[in-house]
Amino acid sequence: MENQLFVQNTLTRNRELFQPMNPPFVGMYVCGPTVYGDPHLGHARPAVAFDLIFRYLLHLGYKVRYVRNITDVGHLEDDQDEGEDKVAKKARLEQLEPMEIAQFYSDRYFLFMEAMNVRRPSIEPRASGHMIEQIRMIGQILDAGYAYVVNGSVYFDVEQYDRKYQYGKLSGRILADLLANTRRLEGQDEKKNPFDFALWKKAQPEHIMRWPSPWSDGFPGWHLECSAMSCKYLGEQFDIHGGGMDLLFPHHESEIAQSRIANKKPPVRYWLHNNMVTINGQKMGKSLGNFLTLEQFVTGNHPSLEQSYSPMTIRFFILQAHYRSTLDFSNDALRAAEKGLKKLLSGMKTLESLTPSAKSTADIPALCRSCFDAMNDDFNSPVLIANLFEGVRIINSVKDGTEALTGDDLQKLKELFRVFVNDVLGLKSETPQERQEILDGLMKLILELRQDARTRKDFSTSDRIRETLQELRISVKDTRDGAAWNIE
Amino acid sequence: MENQLFVQNTLTRNRELFQPMNPPFVGMYVCGPTVYGDPHLGHARPAVAFDLIFRYLLHLGYKVRYVRNITDVGHLEDDQDEGEDKVAKKARLEQLEPMEIAQFYSDRYFLFMEAMNVRRPSIEPRASGHMIEQIRMIGQILDAGYAYVVNGSVYFDVEQYDRKYQYGKLSGRILADLLANTRRLEGQDEKKNPFDFALWKKAQPEHIMRWPSPWSDGFPGWHLECSAMSCKYLGEQFDIHGGGMDLLFPHHESEIAQSRIANKKPPVRYWLHNNMVTINGQKMGKSLGNFLTLEQFVTGNHPSLEQSYSPMTIRFFILQAHYRSTLDFSNDALRAAEKGLKKLLSGMKTLESLTPSAKSTADIPALCRSCFDAMNDDFNSPVLIANLFEGVRIINSVKDGTEALTGDDLQKLKELFRVFVNDVLGLKSETPQERQEILDGLMKLILELRQDARTRKDFSTSDRIRETLQELRISVKDTRDGAAWNIE
Repeated sequence: MENQLFVQNTLTRNRELFQPMNPPFVGMYVCGPTVYGDPHLGHARPAVAFDLIFRYLLHLGYKVRYVRNITDVGHLEDDQDEGEDKVAKKARLEQLEPMEIAQFYSDRYFLFMEAMNVRRPSIEPRASGHMIEQIRMIGQILDAGYAYVVNGSVYFDVEQYDRKYQYGKLSGRILADLLANTRRLEGQDEKKNPFDFALWKKAQPEHIMRWPSPWSDGFPGWHLECSAMSCKYLGEQFDIHGGGMDLLFPHHESEIAQSRIANKKPPVRYWLHNNMVTINGQKMGKSLGNFLTLEQFVTGNHPSLEQSYSPMTIRFFILQAHYRSTLDFSNDALRAAEKGLKKLLSGMKTLESLTPSAKSTADIPALCRSCFDAMNDDFNSPVLIANLFEGVRIINSVKDGTEALTGDDLQKLKELFRVFVNDVLGLKSETPQERQEILDGLMKLILELRQDARTRKDFSTSDRIRETLQELRISVKDTRDGAAWNIE
Repeated sequence: MENQLFVQNTLTRNRELFQPMNPPFVGMYVCGPTVYGDPHLGHARPAVAFDLIFRYLLHLGYKVRYVRNITDVGHLEDDQDEGEDKVAKKARLEQLEPMEIAQFYSDRYFLFMEAMNVRRPSIEPRASGHMIEQIRMIGQILDAGYAYVVNGSVYFDVEQYDRKYQYGKLSGRILADLLANTRRLEGQDEKKNPFDFALWKKAQPEHIMRWPSPWSDGFPGWHLECSAMSCKYLGEQFDIHGGGMDLLFPHHESEIAQSRIANKKPPVRYWLHNNMVTINGQKMGKSLGNFLTLEQFVTGNHPSLEQSYSPMTIRFFILQAHYRSTLDFSNDALRAAEKGLKKLLSGMKTLESLTPSAKSTADIPALCRSCFDAMNDDFNSPVLIANLFEGVRIINSVKDGTEALTGDDLQKLKELFRVFVNDVLGLKSETPQERQEILDGLMKLILELRQDARTRKDFSTSDRIRETLQELRISVKDTRDGAAWNIE
């Protein structure tokens, strides 16, 4: 029952029963970041969405090999084949070696992913680390007759591919329509067709990131790395390919074309896509001034943020929407998520202290089933969370005495929360901040008690307080506004 | 004055004035881990030693590009050219893809390095990610006539090299002596000479990690990656090459030979080597049962550990010895380090609360000079730490009123501690544990005060305590052994 998982397959537009090729093994590839800038909401969403999917598959008992790439070369500015390499451009601006840029922003990415409790994938391959594999795949595509060489660059022949296979099948596009609506741009003269895409680009003399190849000293096209690395680590055919909907075209479309020609079979069984992030209803973009990095959320340091939001709040906020729905960030929505997360986690704490009754007034097995049903319905985390809130309602009612649960049901409920809140949703309390609040609260109380003791001339008590604080290296200064304390 | 830095150069056996080739830029390459097992003391020492060097060079104002590699392929079991690949063997045992092993243990390594406040290098290149560069270098060495191909494998011709250059110069070995004392081992039949080393090894059919090359489908020799990657990211000649003394021969010796032939010049100006770690006077080794992972130190979970030691204690312990001295781990020594670190950090806190006097009784500028002198003498951290303890003595004397410092000197001393304790030694207080102790201390006091209030029938006070604790979600249970508390 539990593992009758259905997923919405972008490729077929159908909700399909998930049946991995070689159970209990599951191969999953997700497009990771291009590491040339600080991680932002657009990075957080796919990372959290596919973390949820990874975690649920693991919970179901699958042995998942989860591969998420790091793009450190080949991603040009216009996402097609023109403009400067994104990493190289940043390196030029900051006068650094491109790999210093890639390392710095990979580390920043990992830092924030960890703060959001995103599990590390099994393998995180770098594009620059798989040149031989990419060059080999270009050779296969050339041999098959689906690519051509011009001036040391190699392009995939989309029209040739489209004659036999349908280029645009995944994203619902028709090549003829695309062509009818496109005018040729300058600088694309090398291509036979504007939708052809680069497999290999000859490097300009000033280009630092370059590798020798049979065609020129150059670098691979952006789409190629995912075909080459998914094949290397997951095989010619694998179960799940994920990524943001913005990658559907041309990235994933081109990936399918490359892999199909190189390996002579369709590469992926289930294509899953997370939807986009908007901010106050608008597309997020650097030019719109609403481009928010994760650090800005965590520090609150941006004009459009009314407060700071913790990484776990951001995670919970993302999980409150289904991964295929758009997600609109606003201060109100984030504050609501913060409150909701607090309620969920404190309900979970309350659960630990409940005492069992002889009979249950609530149907816990039904609640458990609803939670699994939600996740089995294409990983429907908002419905799962609604069920968990129903669990919190029951917990609080049991605490107030208006509902009752047997020891067995209490045990089931604890297990349910542990599995879904901690393991599957990956939520946890962010202790340090809480600790500080507790410390502040305790010190306020102690200083009041000290004042009371002084008032009633109970000097043995006020001395004891003073000595204990000294031992703990807490210094107290009496100021005009009352006592101020500080840990030395 | 400050930057008259002298370093002990293993290559020349001299203490030399440090003069980078292109100031203010410094290129530094350090051999990193082979990622097939959990990080242990043998990883911690070079990481901390070269972190100290990195930090001090940065403090002196150099722009340092620090490259530390990750060996994920090619490191065979006997460190020469026989046995199984270490990463591949672990992958076989754990039934995983080798890159899953590499990723898992890289992440473990980074986790513990971060806990020890080791700064991330500028670039952390992977051996598997630089196949083209390695294959190209093999081609250069073959073209120069210093390597030969046998059955698809390529070996470096050490005798040929030794005729013109001295193989063994770095490690103080003479090839003729080495040969006289060596008997040929089975399985080395392909080599003309037992000290020849593999540049490329043809892969056995079952070998997973393999790449195409002009000679065979195979993988690079262990020494090659460092020559190829240091050249790629730091140039054909660079300033500093570091690593453990155990790597002197054959690894670094072979690296010099490869780079010199490929690039036609000696690669490195200053070779710096950290000394080894012993445990209770013995070499650390898996077979000796004294092989301690960093996690075991941090949890205290090993029969030979009498307690747990924090990552910062391990760091401080490493820094208390000069990097070129052997370092003997023992419970006594670690406890002493723990105590010393606490003293140093609490001295630093006390410093913040000192009040200035009209005259100084201690010579703070002289203390500052001594600190720089120590670091300029081949990064002599133990002498630096001794000077800082002298600083702590002065601080405590000023607090007690037996010494005095002017506002200007107090400022200098604060700056000195900030620079050397935080920036250069990279030490910081490990707050969470301290916080827990403080929390425990405050709660103990509050529960005593509550008991006192009850005893004197002051119920308004005991109620106030109860309510505040409730607000802070701290539950208190009165047990037979007294009151126990818990954060919900």
